[in-house]
Amino acid sequence: MEQRILLTECSDATGLIAKVTGVCFKYSYNIVHQDQFASEDKRFFMRTVLEGDFNAAGAGNFLQEVKSLLPPDAVVRLNDGHRRRLAVLVTKEAHVLGDILIKAYSGALNADIVMVAGNYDTLSDLSRRFDVPFHLVSHEGISREEQEERMLRLLDDVNADYIVLAKYMRILSPQMVAHFPLGKLINIHHSFLPAFIGARPYQQAYDRGVKIIGATAHFVTDNLDEGPIIEQDVIKVNHRYTAETMAKAGRDVERLVLMRALTKVLDDKVFIHGNKTVVF
Amino acid sequence: MEQRILLTECSDATGLIAKVTGVCFKYSYNIVHQDQFASEDKRFFMRTVLEGDFNAAGAGNFLQEVKSLLPPDAVVRLNDGHRRRLAVLVTKEAHVLGDILIKAYSGALNADIVMVAGNYDTLSDLSRRFDVPFHLVSHEGISREEQEERMLRLLDDVNADYIVLAKYMRILSPQMVAHFPLGKLINIHHSFLPAFIGARPYQQAYDRGVKIIGATAHFVTDNLDEGPIIEQDVIKVNHRYTAETMAKAGRDVERLVLMRALTKVLDDKVFIHGNKTVVF
Amino acid sequence: MEQRILLTECSDATGLIAKVTGVCFKYSYNIVHQDQFASEDKRFFMRTVLEGDFNAAGAGNFLQEVKSLLPPDAVVRLNDGHRRRLAVLVTKEAHVLGDILIKAYSGALNADIVMVAGNYDTLSDLSRRFDVPFHLVSHEGISREEQEERMLRLLDDVNADYIVLAKYMRILSPQMVAHFPLGKLINIHHSFLPAFIGARPYQQAYDRGVKIIGATAHFVTDNLDEGPIIEQDVIKVNHRYTAETMAKAGRDVERLVLMRALTKVLDDKVFIHGNKTVVF
Amino acid sequence: MEQRILLTECSDATGLIAKVTGVCFKYSYNIVHQDQFASEDKRFFMRTVLEGDFNAAGAGNFLQEVKSLLPPDAVVRLNDGHRRRLAVLVTKEAHVLGDILIKAYSGALNADIVMVAGNYDTLSDLSRRFDVPFHLVSHEGISREEQEERMLRLLDDVNADYIVLAKYMRILSPQMVAHFPLGKLINIHHSFLPAFIGARPYQQAYDRGVKIIGATAHFVTDNLDEGPIIEQDVIKVNHRYTAETMAKAGRDVERLVLMRALTKVLDDKVFIHGNKTVVF
Repeated sequence: MEQRILLTECSDATGLIAKVTGVCFKYSYNIVHQDQFASEDKRFFMRTVLEGDFNAAGAGNFLQEVKSLLPPDAVVRLNDGHRRRLAVLVTKEAHVLGDILIKAYSGALNADIVMVAGNYDTLSDLSRRFDVPFHLVSHEGISREEQEERMLRLLDDVNADYIVLAKYMRILSPQMVAHFPLGKLINIHHSFLPAFIGARPYQQAYDRGVKIIGATAHFVTDNLDEGPIIEQDVIKVNHRYTAETMAKAGRDVERLVLMRALTKVLDDKVFIHGNKTVVF
Repeated sequence: MEQRILLTECSDATGLIAKVTGVCFKYSYNIVHQDQFASEDKRFFMRTVLEGDFNAAGAGNFLQEVKSLLPPDAVVRLNDGHRRRLAVLVTKEAHVLGDILIKAYSGALNADIVMVAGNYDTLSDLSRRFDVPFHLVSHEGISREEQEERMLRLLDDVNADYIVLAKYMRILSPQMVAHFPLGKLINIHHSFLPAFIGARPYQQAYDRGVKIIGATAHFVTDNLDEGPIIEQDVIKVNHRYTAETMAKAGRDVERLVLMRALTKVLDDKVFIHGNKTVVF
Repeated sequence: MEQRILLTECSDATGLIAKVTGVCFKYSYNIVHQDQFASEDKRFFMRTVLEGDFNAAGAGNFLQEVKSLLPPDAVVRLNDGHRRRLAVLVTKEAHVLGDILIKAYSGALNADIVMVAGNYDTLSDLSRRFDVPFHLVSHEGISREEQEERMLRLLDDVNADYIVLAKYMRILSPQMVAHFPLGKLINIHHSFLPAFIGARPYQQAYDRGVKIIGATAHFVTDNLDEGPIIEQDVIKVNHRYTAETMAKAGRDVERLVLMRALTKVLDDKVFIHGNKTVVF
Repeated sequence: MEQRILLTECSDATGLIAKVTGVCFKYSYNIVHQDQFASEDKRFFMRTVLEGDFNAAGAGNFLQEVKSLLPPDAVVRLNDGHRRRLAVLVTKEAHVLGDILIKAYSGALNADIVMVAGNYDTLSDLSRRFDVPFHLVSHEGISREEQEERMLRLLDDVNADYIVLAKYMRILSPQMVAHFPLGKLINIHHSFLPAFIGARPYQQAYDRGVKIIGATAHFVTDNLDEGPIIEQDVIKVNHRYTAETMAKAGRDVERLVLMRALTKVLDDKVFIHGNKTVVF
């Protein structure tokens, strides 16, 4: 018995659950788990974990039949269970990449790291210790456009499902962002957004004298640090913290938040809804 | 348009969601929200928030039809939306009762406090400030049986839906527990059970030198502090805490945990499953 | 044996602890607890809990001697242990005031509530249930200046040590703020500042799609929501929350954060340092 | 200017802080930070971070002079700032060791990992990727005594300051524990002790139906899971968790709790006090 995940999204209406689960029942697909949500603006989202025999013909017919019963704006996907491919962009900090590599190494990440690329060479050694190809795409001596083009060529080559900005300290140009569909670029920002957007959030937090600091994993959009938030968490700080010790303390929450977000995305639990997310 | 909550519980089987939601659709009951869970031991639980026109006849037929499609061991209830009645048992500590009274007073509790009873008179003044009848049922000079009988008479008179032990520092006899169906008596214990069962948990926590203390809300069973857990939470402590300051610090988590548990119960989100709970 | 708290603040220098504790030893004042902090900008703060016989003459000489050994910019205070007086300003929401009243009633607050004043009459009944005088200072039909003047007259009359804005939904004018020394006005803001400054923070949080919401207790300054932060905390939310249910869920964290801040202030644990706080 | 940490422990008495800080002042050692604690059973602990010129002769005289002013049972140590050596014992799970190796690799751990030893070979590859020697000390086919003797020989050879049991799933014999001074062996246990002592704590947690699970870092003593607790933390779980998914979710809290405990120990912030700890 195979497991597949059915993702349904459409205008809200009466009977949607009955219709979809009715087709599942007809095809003898057992529902292991189901979650659904209707937003205030009348959009319906559903994630259904199915168990059954998904031969190609049957699954195609099943999807057809589900679609035929839903509103015309429905988007229905059946996760084919292929192993996802991740590309990771970094600068110099090791903690987020290190966590991803260790998780992937120990089988705790449901994906393969197909490439690490950085604008500095700092993390090439760490990547290679885990047999992951590292590419240096320096920004020095070339234009931003040129650096991004080189990066894009690498990214296109590896055909990644998701691109993770694991403390990649470069602001992506609108052109680079537009190169990918929304939902493919995932960033970890080192503050509880929308507080401390932009550069040096720990310095901003120190200057403001906050008693909590945090991290935010979000999909990347054109607007810096304004994309749909997937996951956030915080830790407590006090007057004894400097901007530097805040940054040090924040590393744990950064890597945990990114990893939780990534796990949710890889489990097909995240829908994008306008500038927000539905995370089942 | 009225809202009702349908609670379904039965042996797990294929097609349960399709069957129940199919009947909902047939009766034009819109599903506002639905949650379901199938346990490892193959028990199925579902909570469905419905919106529609629930005239008595229609609702009865609806329930009949749902039941007819489910396994014979199915238990199906349709919350009739009546306002719940709470009785609260106390001893001397004001913080949990105070929280319940304030929440009820300000309309934040979806229930009425119909009675407070205590084995000391300490909290009668507080109860009366909120116009809630207080009954003193002292344990002094009489047998445990006699004290419990008096308490039971009071409780039977008020016809409460739930009885909340809000730091009631008496151990209930098996006879008293057996007087009520499982799920009616809710207790707040001042430790993160199963650590520190029994008397003086903060002293036990202090003696052991733990770095976190907590509170546990649970349904009451025959076995002291062993009933199904509804909600737990903890706070951090350190070497500077004495048993007394732990107790003081623990008050906030005690009242919050009880209130969260109570809110879940009043929202019909809690199923009892053996000695555990399913909390949607 | 009496307990007193010595608060020392001055430019940082070598030997400050030795000097102050030396004088304590000379006067046979036992140090029960001591905390100190030297900021990055070289300001020294120390809180010393002393135990001893504090007759008026001895305590005066002691303070003199401590001062004589410290840099000329030193501010040294010896808490005289008088019971603090709190005035509470409110609008319509009961949860923060309710918590303060219950804590004061049950002896868990080391202060007296001498007055509640509100720009609506909503909470007069609740205040009176706890025998606390309530004053209606409506803003309707009069100018902001006039309303504030009436409020100030009331506040001056009661001679409060601290004025707590317990969800007082009026923005204080610079004139009103300037009427009090910095550190006397304490506000609870319903967001994790500096996110969502200003009006309707829960609506802002909902619109942004954050996964955590919070509350901030801070001293009030001229700049709206920009004063020194005393305490912050957060709770998790998700896509199922509306602005309304966020507001409801946020009530617990609002009252807890304010109460923690207030307790710290009443325990003389809070120093103001520029636009930040040192909270021992 | 060098930094050193002075650790003082003795019977409580009046004037201890004045005496110690007086000597610091005399030797021109600036106090960067100081923390002290007097327990209910009248034991005094103090940690003082000093800045100054610590030539060998001066430091020796300084220590002599401090001791001469304290009660005869005083234990006074001046951390000489040498880089600590850690040995890590493991079985098969990679997450705790992986975290230690990454932290050490990226310079975030103030110590060197001099050896990893395991009763299975599973983690030899991971250790070698970070150039850390791995020793297999299998328990198969030999007696427990023999296995422990081999382990002890290895541990004695590397002269480690601390031995970290990073999910080493063997119960140490009293003989092996007695081989080391209390405070040298640090274990991470996968429950919030004292709940779920012994084997399979996640299965125990699942069976009990708790809503929080946790981890505990503690010094190892003769009594299984009963040693002085250094650090604890918890995460929330619910009815959807199985024993297996609890174990998976618990990995993050296990590695974080151990790392926090280890960091505190390496920063000389932990005193052992009977069966408890003082953690500054």
